[in-house]
Amino acid sequence: IVNLSSCFLQGILERLDAGEIVIGDGGFVFALEKRGYVKAGPWTPEATVEHPEAVRQLHREFLRAGSNVLQTFTFYASEDKLENRGNYVAEKISCQKVNEAACDIAREVANEGDALVAGGVSQTPSYLSCKDKSEVKAAFRKQLDVFMKKNVDFLIAEYFEHVEEAVWAVEVLKESGKPVAATMCIGPEGDMHGVPPGQCAVQLVKAGASIVGVNCHFDPDTSLETVRLMKEGLQAAKLKAHLMSQPLAFHTPDCGKQGFIDLPEFPFGLEPRIVTRWDIQKYARKAYDLGIRYIGGCCGFEPYHVRAIAEELAPERGFLPEASEKHGSWGDNLSMHTKPWVRARARKEYWENLKPASGRPYCPSMSKPDGWGVTKGARELMQQKEATTEQQLKELFQKQKF
Amino acid sequence: IVNLSSCFLQGILERLDAGEIVIGDGGFVFALEKRGYVKAGPWTPEATVEHPEAVRQLHREFLRAGSNVLQTFTFYASEDKLENRGNYVAEKISCQKVNEAACDIAREVANEGDALVAGGVSQTPSYLSCKDKSEVKAAFRKQLDVFMKKNVDFLIAEYFEHVEEAVWAVEVLKESGKPVAATMCIGPEGDMHGVPPGQCAVQLVKAGASIVGVNCHFDPDTSLETVRLMKEGLQAAKLKAHLMSQPLAFHTPDCGKQGFIDLPEFPFGLEPRIVTRWDIQKYARKAYDLGIRYIGGCCGFEPYHVRAIAEELAPERGFLPEASEKHGSWGDNLSMHTKPWVRARARKEYWENLKPASGRPYCPSMSKPDGWGVTKGARELMQQKEATTEQQLKELFQKQKF
Amino acid sequence: IVNLSSCFLQGILERLDAGEIVIGDGGFVFALEKRGYVKAGPWTPEATVEHPEAVRQLHREFLRAGSNVLQTFTFYASEDKLENRGNYVAEKISCQKVNEAACDIAREVANEGDALVAGGVSQTPSYLSCKDKSEVKAAFRKQLDVFMKKNVDFLIAEYFEHVEEAVWAVEVLKESGKPVAATMCIGPEGDMHGVPPGQCAVQLVKAGASIVGVNCHFDPDTSLETVRLMKEGLQAAKLKAHLMSQPLAFHTPDCGKQGFIDLPEFPFGLEPRIVTRWDIQKYARKAYDLGIRYIGGCCGFEPYHVRAIAEELAPERGFLPEASEKHGSWGDNLSMHTKPWVRARARKEYWENLKPASGRPYCPSMSKPDGWGVTKGARELMQQKEATTEQQLKELFQKQKF
Amino acid sequence: IVNLSSCFLQGILERLDAGEIVIGDGGFVFALEKRGYVKAGPWTPEATVEHPEAVRQLHREFLRAGSNVLQTFTFYASEDKLENRGNYVAEKISCQKVNEAACDIAREVANEGDALVAGGVSQTPSYLSCKDKSEVKAAFRKQLDVFMKKNVDFLIAEYFEHVEEAVWAVEVLKESGKPVAATMCIGPEGDMHGVPPGQCAVQLVKAGASIVGVNCHFDPDTSLETVRLMKEGLQAAKLKAHLMSQPLAFHTPDCGKQGFIDLPEFPFGLEPRIVTRWDIQKYARKAYDLGIRYIGGCCGFEPYHVRAIAEELAPERGFLPEASEKHGSWGDNLSMHTKPWVRARARKEYWENLKPASGRPYCPSMSKPDGWGVTKGARELMQQKEATTEQQLKELFQKQKF
Repeated sequence: IVNLSSCFLQGILERLDAGEIVIGDGGFVFALEKRGYVKAGPWTPEATVEHPEAVRQLHREFLRAGSNVLQTFTFYASEDKLENRGNYVAEKISCQKVNEAACDIAREVANEGDALVAGGVSQTPSYLSCKDKSEVKAAFRKQLDVFMKKNVDFLIAEYFEHVEEAVWAVEVLKESGKPVAATMCIGPEGDMHGVPPGQCAVQLVKAGASIVGVNCHFDPDTSLETVRLMKEGLQAAKLKAHLMSQPLAFHTPDCGKQGFIDLPEFPFGLEPRIVTRWDIQKYARKAYDLGIRYIGGCCGFEPYHVRAIAEELAPERGFLPEASEKHGSWGDNLSMHTKPWVRARARKEYWENLKPASGRPYCPSMSKPDGWGVTKGARELMQQKEATTEQQLKELFQKQKF
Repeated sequence: IVNLSSCFLQGILERLDAGEIVIGDGGFVFALEKRGYVKAGPWTPEATVEHPEAVRQLHREFLRAGSNVLQTFTFYASEDKLENRGNYVAEKISCQKVNEAACDIAREVANEGDALVAGGVSQTPSYLSCKDKSEVKAAFRKQLDVFMKKNVDFLIAEYFEHVEEAVWAVEVLKESGKPVAATMCIGPEGDMHGVPPGQCAVQLVKAGASIVGVNCHFDPDTSLETVRLMKEGLQAAKLKAHLMSQPLAFHTPDCGKQGFIDLPEFPFGLEPRIVTRWDIQKYARKAYDLGIRYIGGCCGFEPYHVRAIAEELAPERGFLPEASEKHGSWGDNLSMHTKPWVRARARKEYWENLKPASGRPYCPSMSKPDGWGVTKGARELMQQKEATTEQQLKELFQKQKF
Repeated sequence: IVNLSSCFLQGILERLDAGEIVIGDGGFVFALEKRGYVKAGPWTPEATVEHPEAVRQLHREFLRAGSNVLQTFTFYASEDKLENRGNYVAEKISCQKVNEAACDIAREVANEGDALVAGGVSQTPSYLSCKDKSEVKAAFRKQLDVFMKKNVDFLIAEYFEHVEEAVWAVEVLKESGKPVAATMCIGPEGDMHGVPPGQCAVQLVKAGASIVGVNCHFDPDTSLETVRLMKEGLQAAKLKAHLMSQPLAFHTPDCGKQGFIDLPEFPFGLEPRIVTRWDIQKYARKAYDLGIRYIGGCCGFEPYHVRAIAEELAPERGFLPEASEKHGSWGDNLSMHTKPWVRARARKEYWENLKPASGRPYCPSMSKPDGWGVTKGARELMQQKEATTEQQLKELFQKQKF
Repeated sequence: IVNLSSCFLQGILERLDAGEIVIGDGGFVFALEKRGYVKAGPWTPEATVEHPEAVRQLHREFLRAGSNVLQTFTFYASEDKLENRGNYVAEKISCQKVNEAACDIAREVANEGDALVAGGVSQTPSYLSCKDKSEVKAAFRKQLDVFMKKNVDFLIAEYFEHVEEAVWAVEVLKESGKPVAATMCIGPEGDMHGVPPGQCAVQLVKAGASIVGVNCHFDPDTSLETVRLMKEGLQAAKLKAHLMSQPLAFHTPDCGKQGFIDLPEFPFGLEPRIVTRWDIQKYARKAYDLGIRYIGGCCGFEPYHVRAIAEELAPERGFLPEASEKHGSWGDNLSMHTKPWVRARARKEYWENLKPASGRPYCPSMSKPDGWGVTKGARELMQQKEATTEQQLKELFQKQKF
């Protein structure tokens, strides 16, 4: 029975404080890249202006799949990023216009259900190329101005590799008075300066974040391990915060500290790593058991992955999402198939235990991440943002084999 | 340079006769299942009435990706099928309404570009449960009436496992006077009664099909081998027809005669088998070299896969599709990445030679199809459609281990 | 119960004619290469003179494992071969001496049990470098002279890629009056000149072979398929002969027409392909069911693989081999292990269904054979032996990429 | 150039103190199981009495491959073990007889070269079933009496899962006045009571061991990591000892704390995990670079694996082993092959970079170790040796699913 909840009228913190499960949405840049509206490489969101119907449709699908939060499609929409990479956009579209359109579309769809709208900021080229705190904060503030004008429900600082920059973002967002969530794209080894997950979480909460966790860069299992370390760090520091996870929908047991970008398959050969809906049900259950209550996804998550979270946690939440109209729990819609051996797949044990084949006997199971040959020094230089120009980078790397 | 063709004003046969490449679209049921609008198992297209915006958006994405043909989303939309499985549809929606809406949506989007609209019919429960030719033909005729009323540009009989039923479909469709294409979901071993691909092609052309080929059930390589056998059959019979292929976007080297449905991963664990855009570029090139000029896809094909066909054949066609605005050829959009080892991926040789890892070390590369333990006799009974009821099937299969 | 048969006193044909199963031995060159006595590349058997104790010990192990035939270790021991490659042998050892020592050792060990001694000849460099029938036959005759002097029990012409040469070998061996077996190292596609397996078998039987089949180059499954085709050929020609198979102990589903030599792993990276004892039990059963009664192995077969044949067919033969003293059927020797989960492995179902992991997540399941890029013309030239010298080959292949 | 060293006349410590590399031998129980002389499960060495020629031949092969130490084949030859499992041995063979024969054979072969003879003791059922130190020590002392009578060159306490028992063994062996080496079959997580590798090493050195390290249970990479931790522990404690490693010749990246015995493939399906000679060359180099100077192998090591150690370290040692007569460095013996693509394999880069395929597309790369479902409590009980009888174990495990 599909049973739409009508009690969701409160803000994000009221919901989480009341013990509710909040389901996030999926990854816009990857989904829209496959649909033809986002360019891999720059990954910028000018589609909000160029093709609003495509963005709107994806929001609707996530809403229908069970998302309680629609994030504005403002990833990498800071002015410095859009300027830097904007030359492939047919006509000049202002950063402000992209951000405003993103807010309008998200709100329009959110009103079709009971979802909240979250405005998001993410890491900036400014931070990577210099260390001037005020300049970086100014970039965040520009985006925040739009979010305030459009009155989003809460704010997310996400996809940060350095806790220092994430803290700056949280500080800016807190100026708004709205609730702030903060997620980093790090693994169990910590941020790019070596700050461990537990300390990252502590710094973020101290800066004002009410919800902390991880997003992107690592698969569900690895991401949950990182959140577990964050939880331990918070407990040790006697701090309280809600936990959040929005991992990749790709299996990446083989990636190194910097996540899936270093894998040879990134970004155009990741298909064999895509997780199944059953993998996501396992992820949702593990996340719940770990105490995470804001459970969503990032790159690779399609609407059916979000639905899998909502279906797994339907017993706890008391209802199924609208899109479950078109989905049987654990494959029970196969029970009427004409072939008996397909009917035999209409049960939980089958899908839970299936080890799906890749159909690719000439391919391996795991890859060595690229860039391993780079000396530690060069990596650190890059991380310290001292290698700012193409030319400098080129010289740096010509000196060594990698 | 993105360069939209404006010269496509002719019909399907004029285009093919002139030597043009015609790009098909992708698989609606799988794509819309992941988006939350189609139920796996029945796979019926009531979304045309329930959620027209979702169907329209998918058509637009395929058009933007380069499709020259938009197929009406009328798969399994025969009355017998919809009645049989229709009980999960919230309110009763008539077969005619579904088919009409499908035509309207396809035409609306086709008019946004220069695409043709093709009305499609596919195998029927009627054929599987009895052998009365007139009854089966009546089912096709009902769908055809809608296609004529809505004035589609041409007709496709697709997804037939038995050439006998496919011939009946072609015969009905030919009554319209419109061009007819016919594709079967068979592999190199031929149809379910053992008719080899070459003979299938001959029968279809003799029945009136101007375009013949395969769709669904097998991966690109296997499908091309089947079309090659069809081509040989036609040449031996001194018949002429255009060739067409619309394979799966899944690697299925391990499937048996009945295709991917028998694979243990069907339909909810196929993710590791999804083909990359580069696999599709190879497929498009091989299809072209084989003489196929109507090149599209079926289940698993997303818009970016169709774009890959259009990009691979851009030299021959002289232009890129609109969606290539957001895609660099062979990854060249990575050439500005901050990491040198990611920049190193901005070249054809890299992606052409990549053997993508599955990230699943506990899973195998290939699976044994289910149903292999079934005795040949039982399989044949099923194929001969003598096992019509659940009870009969149950008894049949209880007699043996499988 | 270990129960040594004492009834084996007859010749090979008496045994086979009486319906007995005859178990062959395993591959000497691979086993002795790993033990340090044979050089990969030349693969010549000078160890019979240099290290007779090592050869004797391996014979003993096969005898103990259940072999009813001990083949003289005379592989590639024709004069032309030994001369050609002999320069790595410390002191000059004559071809005759190698062959005589091989016979003496085999007979000495055979007498410790009830095994027969078979003298073997194999393909010659002479055939590959010229077409003079008399010269090739002379090479075989030299080896035969030794076998007659040493009075072996019967003769085997094995490891032939061209049926023409195999026929010549059989003709020479038949001059002796002793029973002759003939096996080719071909797969289902037939010999290197394209003669199909069925025709090869017919030619060999017509030339005088009483036993025909295959050895080396392909895995058990592929080899059995080839023997099946030979059987069909003989039946169609209304000829009778005993069937024999001595395949590799490596899984090679991915090899091309010329077998495992073209696989990139040959010969020093084949370890992950080594078959288990359970694979061999399945092979022995399938071979038996196919009507093959001379069942042995070739490269990769170690004594425990031969024992697996003898254990699988113990019900038919009525006794176990001596080495089964140290082996429980289907792992039953694990039933006393201290760990319950290891004890749980002491049963047939466990080992029969195990899909053993490679422990190599960075490696694929299958490889593309090398040499595929070579044009068909070049391959044929090589096969036609027109490219005799290093220089000619070099020029031939420099003209093309491979 | 094969160049036999004649300078090895000194004892083990003189050699190691002088900075020489000492090459160990390989695993007798696995090698002789495949040859038909050892029973998997009990793994006892009665072959020294039953089939001395087989044991002698294996010693010779290791000597020829480069081993500087021949270990007496006395694994699991303590009286309690032989009694416990001895019922499958045809006639009653006394423990003393087995141990004496082992010493005689090893010495005989050692004298054919310049190798040392090492007497070995390993973990005892006595320790696992009770905690009486004096009783356990008495078992070791019985074996030591034989070693003293036969005057072995030095002593090895190996294959201990509990450092406590290993220390007892070292204490007994030290009574002899001979040099003592001690290796544990543990991984980086430490011994079965949770003592980390560094502490194990410290305890062993304090008990009198001059050489410490690991053997068995884990693959080369894991074993080297364990030795690295031992080295760190010794350095932190300011203790000095020589380092030693004798790992498995199987890839086991997927095994848990108790090593390969818990892998589903143990012991009859390990074939796809067997390491290549090139894997061993990498291992030898890494071991050397880590400061290990006693480098050998354990289960799975065949003579050609030991030769690979000797070939890799030939530049440091100044000579090749005798068996290299029959082996080209890095495949150079393929340089004369008739096929150009096989000749192309005659180089280091080829074999170093090869990712060998398994030929098993239906098998995964990694397995989940068995016994994971066992509660921690049950595991600990077993480790605490409170579950001594079959009946107790059975009851213990029937209470839980595993």
